[in-house]
Amino acid sequence: MKTAVAPGAQLLDVPTPIPPRDGALVKIKSVSICGTDFHVYSWDAWAQGRVKPPVTMGHEWAGEVVKVGPECQSLKVGDYVSGESHKVCGHCLQCRTGQGHVCQNTKIFGVDVNGCFAEYFAVPEASVIHNAPRVPPEIACMQDPLGNAVHAALAGDIIGKSVAVLGCGPIGLFAIAVCRAVGAGPVFASDTTEYRLDLARALGADTLARVTDDDIEQMVKGTTGGQGVDVVLEMSGAPVAIQQAMRLARPGGRVSLMGIPSRAVSLDIAEDVIFKGLTVQGIVGRRLYDTWYTMKALLASGKLDVSPILTHKLPFEEFRAGMDLMRSGQCGKVVLTL
Amino acid sequence: MKTAVAPGAQLLDVPTPIPPRDGALVKIKSVSICGTDFHVYSWDAWAQGRVKPPVTMGHEWAGEVVKVGPECQSLKVGDYVSGESHKVCGHCLQCRTGQGHVCQNTKIFGVDVNGCFAEYFAVPEASVIHNAPRVPPEIACMQDPLGNAVHAALAGDIIGKSVAVLGCGPIGLFAIAVCRAVGAGPVFASDTTEYRLDLARALGADTLARVTDDDIEQMVKGTTGGQGVDVVLEMSGAPVAIQQAMRLARPGGRVSLMGIPSRAVSLDIAEDVIFKGLTVQGIVGRRLYDTWYTMKALLASGKLDVSPILTHKLPFEEFRAGMDLMRSGQCGKVVLTL
Amino acid sequence: MKTAVAPGAQLLDVPTPIPPRDGALVKIKSVSICGTDFHVYSWDAWAQGRVKPPVTMGHEWAGEVVKVGPECQSLKVGDYVSGESHKVCGHCLQCRTGQGHVCQNTKIFGVDVNGCFAEYFAVPEASVIHNAPRVPPEIACMQDPLGNAVHAALAGDIIGKSVAVLGCGPIGLFAIAVCRAVGAGPVFASDTTEYRLDLARALGADTLARVTDDDIEQMVKGTTGGQGVDVVLEMSGAPVAIQQAMRLARPGGRVSLMGIPSRAVSLDIAEDVIFKGLTVQGIVGRRLYDTWYTMKALLASGKLDVSPILTHKLPFEEFRAGMDLMRSGQCGKVVLTL
Amino acid sequence: MKTAVAPGAQLLDVPTPIPPRDGALVKIKSVSICGTDFHVYSWDAWAQGRVKPPVTMGHEWAGEVVKVGPECQSLKVGDYVSGESHKVCGHCLQCRTGQGHVCQNTKIFGVDVNGCFAEYFAVPEASVIHNAPRVPPEIACMQDPLGNAVHAALAGDIIGKSVAVLGCGPIGLFAIAVCRAVGAGPVFASDTTEYRLDLARALGADTLARVTDDDIEQMVKGTTGGQGVDVVLEMSGAPVAIQQAMRLARPGGRVSLMGIPSRAVSLDIAEDVIFKGLTVQGIVGRRLYDTWYTMKALLASGKLDVSPILTHKLPFEEFRAGMDLMRSGQCGKVVLTL
Repeated sequence: MKTAVAPGAQLLDVPTPIPPRDGALVKIKSVSICGTDFHVYSWDAWAQGRVKPPVTMGHEWAGEVVKVGPECQSLKVGDYVSGESHKVCGHCLQCRTGQGHVCQNTKIFGVDVNGCFAEYFAVPEASVIHNAPRVPPEIACMQDPLGNAVHAALAGDIIGKSVAVLGCGPIGLFAIAVCRAVGAGPVFASDTTEYRLDLARALGADTLARVTDDDIEQMVKGTTGGQGVDVVLEMSGAPVAIQQAMRLARPGGRVSLMGIPSRAVSLDIAEDVIFKGLTVQGIVGRRLYDTWYTMKALLASGKLDVSPILTHKLPFEEFRAGMDLMRSGQCGKVVLTL
Repeated sequence: MKTAVAPGAQLLDVPTPIPPRDGALVKIKSVSICGTDFHVYSWDAWAQGRVKPPVTMGHEWAGEVVKVGPECQSLKVGDYVSGESHKVCGHCLQCRTGQGHVCQNTKIFGVDVNGCFAEYFAVPEASVIHNAPRVPPEIACMQDPLGNAVHAALAGDIIGKSVAVLGCGPIGLFAIAVCRAVGAGPVFASDTTEYRLDLARALGADTLARVTDDDIEQMVKGTTGGQGVDVVLEMSGAPVAIQQAMRLARPGGRVSLMGIPSRAVSLDIAEDVIFKGLTVQGIVGRRLYDTWYTMKALLASGKLDVSPILTHKLPFEEFRAGMDLMRSGQCGKVVLTL
Repeated sequence: MKTAVAPGAQLLDVPTPIPPRDGALVKIKSVSICGTDFHVYSWDAWAQGRVKPPVTMGHEWAGEVVKVGPECQSLKVGDYVSGESHKVCGHCLQCRTGQGHVCQNTKIFGVDVNGCFAEYFAVPEASVIHNAPRVPPEIACMQDPLGNAVHAALAGDIIGKSVAVLGCGPIGLFAIAVCRAVGAGPVFASDTTEYRLDLARALGADTLARVTDDDIEQMVKGTTGGQGVDVVLEMSGAPVAIQQAMRLARPGGRVSLMGIPSRAVSLDIAEDVIFKGLTVQGIVGRRLYDTWYTMKALLASGKLDVSPILTHKLPFEEFRAGMDLMRSGQCGKVVLTL
Repeated sequence: MKTAVAPGAQLLDVPTPIPPRDGALVKIKSVSICGTDFHVYSWDAWAQGRVKPPVTMGHEWAGEVVKVGPECQSLKVGDYVSGESHKVCGHCLQCRTGQGHVCQNTKIFGVDVNGCFAEYFAVPEASVIHNAPRVPPEIACMQDPLGNAVHAALAGDIIGKSVAVLGCGPIGLFAIAVCRAVGAGPVFASDTTEYRLDLARALGADTLARVTDDDIEQMVKGTTGGQGVDVVLEMSGAPVAIQQAMRLARPGGRVSLMGIPSRAVSLDIAEDVIFKGLTVQGIVGRRLYDTWYTMKALLASGKLDVSPILTHKLPFEEFRAGMDLMRSGQCGKVVLTL
């Protein structure tokens, strides 16, 4: 729990929360650490501007319903569930027209309201989804970030399409796994570290490019008859990679931008976007709840295996070690178990 | 070659055809036998009304370009190619708006104009597609019917969707393989024969229903919480299966009809189509050429393995034995090699 | 109010309902009579099987919020609102994936739960939409059935498309007005009565066909170069019209079925659906809430003028005269004002 | 005709061209001057790098077929036709998958090959479309640039959507007319000149913003509840307008970029694209031939009236006066008649 306006967090005894009238109390089994959690833990500028301690951190979870509110209709005690990190309003234009992922009144669990890094988590049913029984909690808790990758990969045609994934952090790695599971064509992947490129290879990327050492543009052009790939999934947020994304896509292709750049990016709109007839998408969150249903089916069928991305599993009490791993970059996803 | 207005066909020495100005001469390596070829060979009522012998039969092929016409732009000698069975006009509303598969001036190779059951085949470049090098001719020649299955399966959302495939003839079997390759959810398959259900199992169908013995509606409802499947691919053409297709689909689902019924079908439009908000699609041919590019990528990546459906491979001269196999129904696809 | 298990209805003094926690109490200004209301009033077989009196009838309304529940977030006193007739669950697969119009737990206001034929109406905010100020209550109350027409017309490409509207009851007439407002191509309309064809003409239909007297198939083929129309909107429910719909659509076209047939319909699936590559859609309800936002914008801009369809406006007390008009068929929409 | 590597052009007697085998000879009735023609005429840097005189200029035309080639299938003498300015290859990935507007082998009539500023124009049938009889040549010749606007406006949902059109040159003006014809919601328009804003008003724009004087962002936010518009059509090419386009779109909205900036543009990708979940499209050319069919229907129905944009009509011989008008910016479209 984030208790003070300072770096770090504390493990505290707190009263068990009460389920909302239209929600449930969940006994948490596994959680995973998001980059956002690390920002909050580190107390960086963004966190200082947004988070008002005390707040229970965390928004990636799997657990079991142990109590339900009086008006809860879709959950019952014993249900094995996970949930969406965006607590959306349900009433705005976006929520009412299938764009809840850009709800203008979104609150994020563990940032704006209490989250799931705790023994018990009180959550409205609108934020909950039933897990497939065959998917263990340590995998199920990662569905929120996995959903980012599913959303990005499936934001346009992907079956049989060639794909470049720029940035092999956890979401980039998830994206590679998703592409493999849904019959994408050749997958190119780039990153700055050998550690992550090794993971990319394990997940089935066909061609790996180490940033600065390898020329991914040359590699892509060579394999695609000079055209470029059908789809670019930009997961790094590096301005130079965003520029590259526009060049890597073939005329008529798609660029899905998910990695958040920290400054403005200068683009050759004429040559790289207009004359090529590109479609460029800002990708945030997950389609509520199309992404979740698709993801659940992919996991349940065994087609989508993301276990190599779960590189570290620690007891919940060792959350500080988990945060240290996040800082090091020498990890995929870090899961904490209760 | 179909030479007479009678059942059967003859293997004859004929002059090598001349490539069209905007096309090529292809040396055929493998062909496969379509149900349509069997109709022509058997000289049934449909064939008698449509085919004007003499005509070289066949429209499923793979081969190598050995000569090109003076205005041919996209092919060169040595290219490894296959092609679309529908020779479309290119000028009608449908051809000009991405619906060439329902071109109103379509001619079919091997039916309306000379086809590919021959040593050499003259074909316009507009009907040709380059094969992936790693796909052998005996598989590449089956892409026309495989394309029917790709078209049907991908005619709406399929990733993560539950699917029922009704009818496990070659195209139904192809459809099962495609669903597996692109990350569909659970796949249910029905047929009347054990032989074909065994093939369906080998290709990865999760649940098999033998028609009359098993109640597929019960099976589907049991697995899908009473909802029905997201997608039904009707490949049998049996009127009773078409009726069943409408009941098997969940509210908001999709029914793609490809199997051709021989008589009118009575449907409960109110309950089974309107109140369920179904989408029902007539599927014919292949998207020109989106289907072909997607199929090529799926085959090239190794994700789509249709080799179990190639149950019989014969020398070209033994085409009569191939036709006998077609009559027996104890086969998947029958390929003839030159 | 429907008070007894018998034909008819009564106007009674009842306690003012209490707004739901997450809803509002609305003072009704105008309501319109749906065919469903007439079924309930007439107490036909369907109504006898479904409706449990006493129930306040009606589900097409416009009014003003006069009180809100303690958890209501999107409404405030004074808001000028209308609402959706389908009270959907919000939790099922369909509700969570943009298909709330086929929610499997739908209740209909005025049928399954109390409706709006009353001075005050208690309604959850999830069922309410804000009206455009310039649209008067007598028009705003018709948005639920108008939404059926918007949903049907916009269920596929419509801009620049030729359209046949079969059946010129209120929803067919609305559909003609919508087609005109959104730049459809030529609109053909058919009905059995001169009264309704006159309304169709007033709304801008280009070609009128009186059923049995005129041959709409011939008219359509003559105008479309033998092709058929791009889009058929079947609004009559007559089995013969549903069969005709399939023949009227061009190869690659769309048939949207909204009129409910009272018995099974025999279709030539091979010729009329599969070989033509048709898309046939069951249309029910309205997209929640895409249809409502689009409709609101069309009404607010003045592009969509449905006032000719409002043929009769009566004081609320004269609801029996309104029901008599419904029985006669000599009306468009009948509106009751309070 | 462009005869020399210098500014200007000459009217010369040349031999009547021969129709291609698969094309026609057209007697030109009207042409219109594109900005591209003005670049060629002015002999700017772009023209010097691309055009190889002598070349007959021009690619916006309407005329009558007077002769057909021996293999031409879709045209006959007397046909009233116009055509697409992009001569596409028909064989590349893009051409074969419905993206011919970004064909990688495109040649432009009047730039790379002989064009239509002549008495007779030889053109392949693949580039020709039949005109609606009720549309006069002086309007029909403008369909190529009108098609840009149709393509841009219809590149996503537009019915009932609020729209901002940035830049009221001819294509921006066309876009306003298209939005009005297809039932868009409120239309905001911006430009630097009063002359063009007056035209925008005449075409039905609801709100006008004079660049630098008026704050369009404030106007849009005020009218849309702070959200921004659903759709931005960027037609100016000004870098500052491209940046503004991203801010003007609401979360979940669409930005279609058509105006060509002359230098790189710096964008706040994080705030303006990713967190808003925007779709940004590069728009070039016209969908072949979906755009043309839709445009034809809109013109034929009389719904789309672009005559106010035709501000100047001159005899063909006065082409120099037309070019002067282009230079002045005090014009909509300039048409030359033969």
